[in-house]
Amino acid sequence: MLKVMLVDGNAERSDVLQNELKADDSVNVIVVDGSRDLMTEVRKYSPDIIIIEMASPDRDTLESLRTVNRELPKPVVFFAEQSDYETTQAAINAGVSAYIVDGLSENRLNSVMEVAIARFKTFQQLKDELEETKGRLQDRKDVDKAKGILMKHRQLSEEEAYQLLRKMAMDRNMKIGEAARNFTAAMSLLGDIG
Amino acid sequence: MLKVMLVDGNAERSDVLQNELKADDSVNVIVVDGSRDLMTEVRKYSPDIIIIEMASPDRDTLESLRTVNRELPKPVVFFAEQSDYETTQAAINAGVSAYIVDGLSENRLNSVMEVAIARFKTFQQLKDELEETKGRLQDRKDVDKAKGILMKHRQLSEEEAYQLLRKMAMDRNMKIGEAARNFTAAMSLLGDIG
Repeated sequence: MLKVMLVDGNAERSDVLQNELKADDSVNVIVVDGSRDLMTEVRKYSPDIIIIEMASPDRDTLESLRTVNRELPKPVVFFAEQSDYETTQAAINAGVSAYIVDGLSENRLNSVMEVAIARFKTFQQLKDELEETKGRLQDRKDVDKAKGILMKHRQLSEEEAYQLLRKMAMDRNMKIGEAARNFTAAMSLLGDIG
Repeated sequence: MLKVMLVDGNAERSDVLQNELKADDSVNVIVVDGSRDLMTEVRKYSPDIIIIEMASPDRDTLESLRTVNRELPKPVVFFAEQSDYETTQAAINAGVSAYIVDGLSENRLNSVMEVAIARFKTFQQLKDELEETKGRLQDRKDVDKAKGILMKHRQLSEEEAYQLLRKMAMDRNMKIGEAARNFTAAMSLLGDIG
């Protein structure tokens, strides 16, 4: 069962969409009012996919979508009645996986949802890889900083400083980047950096 | 003028699409045969957007799309007559920006192209950011390695080793990561690493 959260934005063809979803046995539909806070509804129902239909995505909706995309990203299908290039780009940047203009009743809804879910996965993988790479870069910077402080204050070689940090991390069951950040924070409390 | 490369994959509604594109004054259409090598055609015409219509993306087409996505990525709209979830995911992973199943004549083509271009940009930005972050991480690793060799062989401090690398980079007008890689490669030719 696919749990679909349908956000009713009072667009012309809202009923068509609701009926189509309700007729589908493989779908569990939850209809929420478009005036409610989207993030709250997403936390409450934890849907597999969100479908929104409204005349055009307004500022508030785009802001809500950005919040969802940041906090608890989900595949989002947006059916708009009209759009311009800037609004389209804003919707996509806000995490919309399928943005369909003036094509509600004509599309096979299942295909559209499949495409949205597939695209969401591809995008999330890329985002995850970016986050992980950024984390590794930050760890390296923080370890270098902590090593530098240790080398200076305890007249250690680079290798000795590194081994000390590694031991600290292992003893406290944390990653070396985290251990390095803790150490640097502690030293800065002592006013002892630089 | 939007330069559209239409790849004719002999699908049912190919003519409808061609006529619709040719009727649009803001579009310059180039029709290429689906049996030709896609990468060669993309290099030849350098289109703003590629539209492909075929019954379903076959293995060869997916492979060509992956090549284009790697070598010279472009927004791609794919109109398929049918698809399953795996094929959909494969098409999206191959870089398809808009994948439309059984919805050719019913969609407003201009909206579809706008969505595809917007999505392509968002995805490319994320990919560029990932490449840049990976590059910075690699630079940091390579500089560390070169510093280590210099510190050991010339009994330098870390700071002195870094300054030496920085000078080498500035003198030769290259980035410090590149200078570090050149230095380490030269040392490895001498069998002098470790």
